Amino acid sequence: MQLSVETVATTGGITAPQGFRAAGVACGLKKEGRDLMLLVADRVCAVAGVFTTSVVKAAPVIFSCKRAKAGRAQAVVINSGVANACTGDEGMRLCEQMASDVAEATGLADDLVLVCSTGVIGRQLPMEKISTGITMAAGALSSRGGHDAALAIMTTDTRPKEIALELETEGGIVRIGGMAKGSGMIAPNMATMLGVLTTDAQVDPNTLHVALSNAVDCTFNRITVDGDTSTNDTVLMLASGMSGIRLEQGTQDLALFERGLYQVAEALSKAIVRDGEGATKLVEIRVQGAPDDAAAAAIARTIANSPLVKTMLFGNDPNPGRILAAAGRAGVAFNPNTVDLDLAGIPVARNGQFLPFDKPAASAAMKTDEVLIELTLADGKGEATVWTCDFSYDYVRINADYTT
Amino acid sequence: MQLSVETVATTGGITAPQGFRAAGVACGLKKEGRDLMLLVADRVCAVAGVFTTSVVKAAPVIFSCKRAKAGRAQAVVINSGVANACTGDEGMRLCEQMASDVAEATGLADDLVLVCSTGVIGRQLPMEKISTGITMAAGALSSRGGHDAALAIMTTDTRPKEIALELETEGGIVRIGGMAKGSGMIAPNMATMLGVLTTDAQVDPNTLHVALSNAVDCTFNRITVDGDTSTNDTVLMLASGMSGIRLEQGTQDLALFERGLYQVAEALSKAIVRDGEGATKLVEIRVQGAPDDAAAAAIARTIANSPLVKTMLFGNDPNPGRILAAAGRAGVAFNPNTVDLDLAGIPVARNGQFLPFDKPAASAAMKTDEVLIELTLADGKGEATVWTCDFSYDYVRINADYTT
Repeated sequence: MQLSVETVATTGGITAPQGFRAAGVACGLKKEGRDLMLLVADRVCAVAGVFTTSVVKAAPVIFSCKRAKAGRAQAVVINSGVANACTGDEGMRLCEQMASDVAEATGLADDLVLVCSTGVIGRQLPMEKISTGITMAAGALSSRGGHDAALAIMTTDTRPKEIALELETEGGIVRIGGMAKGSGMIAPNMATMLGVLTTDAQVDPNTLHVALSNAVDCTFNRITVDGDTSTNDTVLMLASGMSGIRLEQGTQDLALFERGLYQVAEALSKAIVRDGEGATKLVEIRVQGAPDDAAAAAIARTIANSPLVKTMLFGNDPNPGRILAAAGRAGVAFNPNTVDLDLAGIPVARNGQFLPFDKPAASAAMKTDEVLIELTLADGKGEATVWTCDFSYDYVRINADYTT
Repeated sequence: MQLSVETVATTGGITAPQGFRAAGVACGLKKEGRDLMLLVADRVCAVAGVFTTSVVKAAPVIFSCKRAKAGRAQAVVINSGVANACTGDEGMRLCEQMASDVAEATGLADDLVLVCSTGVIGRQLPMEKISTGITMAAGALSSRGGHDAALAIMTTDTRPKEIALELETEGGIVRIGGMAKGSGMIAPNMATMLGVLTTDAQVDPNTLHVALSNAVDCTFNRITVDGDTSTNDTVLMLASGMSGIRLEQGTQDLALFERGLYQVAEALSKAIVRDGEGATKLVEIRVQGAPDDAAAAAIARTIANSPLVKTMLFGNDPNPGRILAAAGRAGVAFNPNTVDLDLAGIPVARNGQFLPFDKPAASAAMKTDEVLIELTLADGKGEATVWTCDFSYDYVRINADYTT
C-alpha cells in the first residue's frame, strides 16, 4: 500500500492498536479453514458502524445496527459460511445467542457484543458449531491475533485483506488497524462486504461516527464488483482510547486521524476490488467537472458498473464510445460537447469528439493490473473516484457453474 | 408470436399497412449484407417518435427528434454500420445531407424525411457510399420491401425482427407493422435499439404520440440486455391513414388499436431480448404488490440487470437469495418479511423466508428457453413486467475479444 508521508505502515491488522486481542478459529462452518473470529477490547470502546442500505437486511445487520447506535461496544464476533439472512425470527434468536455466548465466554456484558455473519443466504446458523467456535476463540485471544481474524472472515476471497498504520500526532503515536473481506455478493449465495477497523485513539462515539461515515462514503461506498449490494454489508470501528491520546473536534490531530482512517479504508477497499470475482485488474474511474460531487459519483459508478465497459477492460480493447455512452445514461445533465476522456493515460476524446488515437498502443497501455479512466466535464466543480474491476470469463464461471 | 383473439397475424412487416413502400440495399457500410433502408409513404403521415434519454445523443437522434415534433413525415432512412454519434458539427451536417439526398431521390419535401443511424460510435459517415445507397434504395422501393428493410438495419443481430397484424375495427380492417433491431450497446461499439412502426389507420399526431409512448413504456422500455442505454435508441411510428379508418379519442376502435400496438411492440421487444448478445434464454420478471407501478418496475429492472441473477440463469442454478438481494437494493421501500418468490414456477420463498425446495427439479425447470421469475410483495397494487436474457460466456467473448 502507498501511504502518505504522514503515516507509517505497521503490522498486526486489527490488533495493531493498543488494547485489542483477537482470534480466528475453525469450527466447521466452511469446508476448510478458519471460519469464526472474535475481537475483544481490554476496555469499553467508542463504536461506530455503517450498514447495508438494502431493504433486505440480514439478522446480524439489524441487531448490530441497533447496538452500535448506543456508541459503546467491547467485542465483535463474526462467522463466515452462513449469512443468517432471510432467516426470520429464528435467525434473530440465533444472532442474539451468538452475542450471549460471547458474553458468557469472555465475561463481558452482553449488550457490548456486536455480531456479523457472511456466507450463504437463507440457511439457519448451525448453532452448536458456532457455540463451540466461540469458546475456542475466547481461549485463543491474542494481541497478535489480527491475521487469524482476517483469515476467518474470508469466504470466496482468495487472500486476506488487512492493514495497520501509525500516526504521529502532537500528543504521540496513534494506531489504526483494519481488515475486510470479499466485495459484493459472492457465489453461490455468499454475501457481504465486511470491514472491521480499530484504533487506540480516544475519541467520542459521535466524532468517530462522522469520521467513519466520511471515510466509508469515499472508499467502501465507491467500489463495485458487480453492482450487487449485499444483505449483510457492514463496516464497524472500535476506538479503545488505550494510546491515551484524545482527539478533540477542530484539532489538527483529529484531521490527521481522519486522513489516516481514509487511507486505511481506501487500501482495504482497493484490496477488495483487486480480489473481485474473476478480476484481472483494478480500474480507477475519476470524474471531474461535474455539477456536484454526487453527480460525479453517479457518472463514475455508472461507468464502473457497465458490463460493456468491464468486458472491454478485460479484453484490453480501447472503445471510448462505451465509456461516453455509460456516462450519458447516468441520470446527470451535462454538456456532451465539452467532454474530455483519457483512457490508460491516452487522450481519446476532446470536446465530445473522438481523437484519432493509436489503438494498438492504447490496447498495450490497458494491459496492466491498474487502469485509469479520466472523464473531465465542464459543468462544475464536482469530482469523484470509483474503483472497480474488469468482467472476465471467470466471473461467469464462478457465478454460473455452481452445481446444484 | 402469441396474439390475442382480437388480432390476426399477417406478413409484410412495415409494408403490411397500406400506403408504405420500403427497400433495403447493400452500399458497403458493413462487411456484408444490406446496410441501408428507406421507407417512403404514399402520402404525408402523422408521425410520433420516442428517443434515447441519454445525455450523449447521436446526431440523427437530435435531428429526427426535432423533426418528429412537427407531427408530419413521409420517409425514414436508416443506415447500419456507423452510428454517427460523438461526431460533432460534421456529423450533424452529414445527417442533414442524408435527408436531402432522400428528398432529391424521391421528390419529397426535405423536412418530411427522418434519419436514424446505428453502428460504430465516433466515426464519420462515409457519405459517398450512403448517397449511392439512397439512390439505389429509392429505385428499389416496393410495397413488399418490409423484409429487406428489416435485414438492412441489423448490426450484430443474428436474425431480423419484424411483425405485422390486422385489427378488425368497427369501420373495417386496420393494419400495424413493425421492425426492430439489436438491443443495448453492441460489440465492438455498435449502438442502438431501433424500432420503426407503421399503420394505415388515420390518427392525429398527438393521439399517435400518446399511444406510442404508452406502448413503448411497457415494452421497449421494459427490456434490458446489459443495462447499457445507447446513444441512438429510437422508435418511430408513421400513420398513413390509407385504410380510411379514423381513430377518434375515446372510441372502442382507438382502444383496440392501442392494444394491437402494444402487442406489436411487445413482440418486437421480446425478439430483441431473445437475440441479446450471448443469450441462451428469455427471462420474464413479474413484480406485483409493490407500492406503485414505478416501484414495481424499479425492482424488476434491478433484478433483470443483476449480473449475479443473470449468470445464475445461464447456469440453471436456483439461487433465490440473489433475486431477493437484488430486489432489496432497488431503492424501493418494502416489507421484506411478506415477500413471496417463485422461480420457474416453483415456490422458493414465502413471507421472506426460503422454502425447502427440490434443487435438481428447480434446475431442470430453469433449463428452458423461457424462464419466469415472479416476486409478490404485500405493499400495494403496483405491478410491472420486465424482460431480460441470461449472461453467458458468449457475452464476455463478444464484448471482450474485439481485436484492435
